Amino acid sequence: MPVMNTNHHPDLAALTTPRLLLDEARMDHNIQRMQRRLDELGVAFRPHVKTTKCVDIARRQAAAGARGITVSTLMEARVFHAAGFDDILYAVAIAPARLDEALELARRGCRLTLVVASVQAAEMVAAHGRAQGHVHDVVIEIDTDGHRAGLKPDDAALPATARALTVVERGGARLKGVMTHAGSSYGLDQRDALIRLAEQERAGCVAAAQRLRDCGLTCDVVSVGSTPTALAAMNLDGVTEVRAGVYVFFDLVMAGTGVCRTDDIALSVLTTVIGHRVDTGWLVTDSGWMAMSRDRGTQRQAVDHGYGLVCDLAGTPIPGLSFAEANQEHGVLHWQGDPGTDLVARFPVGTLLRMLPNHACATGAQHGQYTVIDASAAPVATWERFRGW
Amino acid sequence: MPVMNTNHHPDLAALTTPRLLLDEARMDHNIQRMQRRLDELGVAFRPHVKTTKCVDIARRQAAAGARGITVSTLMEARVFHAAGFDDILYAVAIAPARLDEALELARRGCRLTLVVASVQAAEMVAAHGRAQGHVHDVVIEIDTDGHRAGLKPDDAALPATARALTVVERGGARLKGVMTHAGSSYGLDQRDALIRLAEQERAGCVAAAQRLRDCGLTCDVVSVGSTPTALAAMNLDGVTEVRAGVYVFFDLVMAGTGVCRTDDIALSVLTTVIGHRVDTGWLVTDSGWMAMSRDRGTQRQAVDHGYGLVCDLAGTPIPGLSFAEANQEHGVLHWQGDPGTDLVARFPVGTLLRMLPNHACATGAQHGQYTVIDASAAPVATWERFRGW
Repeated sequence: MPVMNTNHHPDLAALTTPRLLLDEARMDHNIQRMQRRLDELGVAFRPHVKTTKCVDIARRQAAAGARGITVSTLMEARVFHAAGFDDILYAVAIAPARLDEALELARRGCRLTLVVASVQAAEMVAAHGRAQGHVHDVVIEIDTDGHRAGLKPDDAALPATARALTVVERGGARLKGVMTHAGSSYGLDQRDALIRLAEQERAGCVAAAQRLRDCGLTCDVVSVGSTPTALAAMNLDGVTEVRAGVYVFFDLVMAGTGVCRTDDIALSVLTTVIGHRVDTGWLVTDSGWMAMSRDRGTQRQAVDHGYGLVCDLAGTPIPGLSFAEANQEHGVLHWQGDPGTDLVARFPVGTLLRMLPNHACATGAQHGQYTVIDASAAPVATWERFRGW
Repeated sequence: MPVMNTNHHPDLAALTTPRLLLDEARMDHNIQRMQRRLDELGVAFRPHVKTTKCVDIARRQAAAGARGITVSTLMEARVFHAAGFDDILYAVAIAPARLDEALELARRGCRLTLVVASVQAAEMVAAHGRAQGHVHDVVIEIDTDGHRAGLKPDDAALPATARALTVVERGGARLKGVMTHAGSSYGLDQRDALIRLAEQERAGCVAAAQRLRDCGLTCDVVSVGSTPTALAAMNLDGVTEVRAGVYVFFDLVMAGTGVCRTDDIALSVLTTVIGHRVDTGWLVTDSGWMAMSRDRGTQRQAVDHGYGLVCDLAGTPIPGLSFAEANQEHGVLHWQGDPGTDLVARFPVGTLLRMLPNHACATGAQHGQYTVIDASAAPVATWERFRGW
């Protein structure tokens, strides 16, 4: 007789793998936690839906108190607008060839805000608006940590960029404010350092807004955020809204920064053991990088989780198993526990495991659906997620 | 007036970005090259369609002389079978919970071959076949390079695994042969070493087949392959078929192994410059890891291409620009050329670039379509690619 695994959860065992699982109770807890914190700090919360690309989840965030959403693509803007979200910040500087799409969304009633970070881009957006008889709402991206894009708060080009949007009498664009994203927060793991970075993010963005106001310009919106800084901030004076995305699921990288625990992570990949290498102490699974993504975000953190943290069906980490390698549809787990363990007997072919992701945004992007599970790990719903640009 | 980029290709400039481009002429050349080489060596070629997940491309491979296909998921098996491909090797050891799906495909007329690599898995497959009144066609996976999965040619479990499939009088499975994949070839970059590994792959798989025949078992299929070993092999005596996937597009990792040149790479991501950081000499683009994947496969090679090789619209690499960082929808290119270059003037917002991928399988997986371009980089067709399990 074949060796059968009798340790299956009665519900998950009926599902094929690999499969993206979403723990609804953990997600709801994460949503409440962020909303409560930002309510305490007296700022609006505009969640970034790039993490989930899922209307069902954004509705939970809105029901908890979020105001508006942040998107990373115009595809997200279109899908969420069609689902009833009408206050949308497109937080990536727009490619000029996409301005017609932004206009179309605005004409369908979407209050879409665009981002620019240079005089050149501001001129392009304003010129497009003028040519089309439209006024684009725009915020200027501020760089508060040298991480990626934006103008420094004291950059000589900041007032010039604002004027390129607003001072041209012919219209075409309207300056709504400033936004920043302290993405370097992902590289920190000490609470003090995160608190300092959150203050740097706040202070830099508020200073940029003040500088524009000192030039006589209107600057209503002061938008900041990343999940770690949103959770670390001690005060947000002068800020009007915070943005964060990955907090809704959390992941191993976030756990590495210290802003959550691994048992807050709501996303996992259900996986089947498909083979063993007894000589090397390896388990082979059906979740390779196609199911997990190639993200190795914990590689530079204090604890490197390989391609994910290996858990049992209840979501509890299994000591001794490390997710060391990933090919397209093969995961390779290395056994680092008792060398006398009979891996074939303990984890026979067919054993189900759950893998916590390094980076929830990247792992989620590999899948077209969430299998939603309740607190007892029973499947209760399937939610769609989309992709594309 | 905004600075406009007048250096656009007249056709590509009409497309939004990020977008996956497929150079049809390069792909056809790659298809012909592999088929010709394996024809010379006197073996059948069974391309791995996990790279493309595209029926249009598999038809080109079949027209060039390929016999059958290799898949990495049962979703691929279903889609390609529905499109008329009926000889399919599912080259990943099957999860027991998926055996009903395999049976359903077989009952619809698909000649589907499964893979096992242990007595335990062989018993499960045979038991399923017996219970369902079906005979599963099975090959045994052989490990010829210690890279991932399979039984070593001299493993004591090899005859036992074959007997678990065949000797049980009640049926349920049939031993078709053996297969191996020398995936460690991706880590080599010297032609001599690739030739030696190809011979090791061949000899190990042939030895495993001989060992089974010496036990009185039938072993018709001896299947080997990876793109580098397929192109390096000097003889394939005893081998009946070769498998390879990424050769159809090639990529920077393959160029790093020496089996192709960068101007053989048929896949690229069309990208727009969306901003600059003048202080650091950075270009910001709209192709982050969502468009490129997180694959950093050239990181361990002699030339590390970051997240991709930056080219102009004609596909020619641009010296001085390195694709150093990728966030979800932002690429960051570092300028390492003449520090006096005015990046904003040379690469204004709106400039289109093309990024060659580290790993074509991973970059392709981030997209739902190929925009097919001809030798003059004019778009000529859109081909769908699918995903999921």
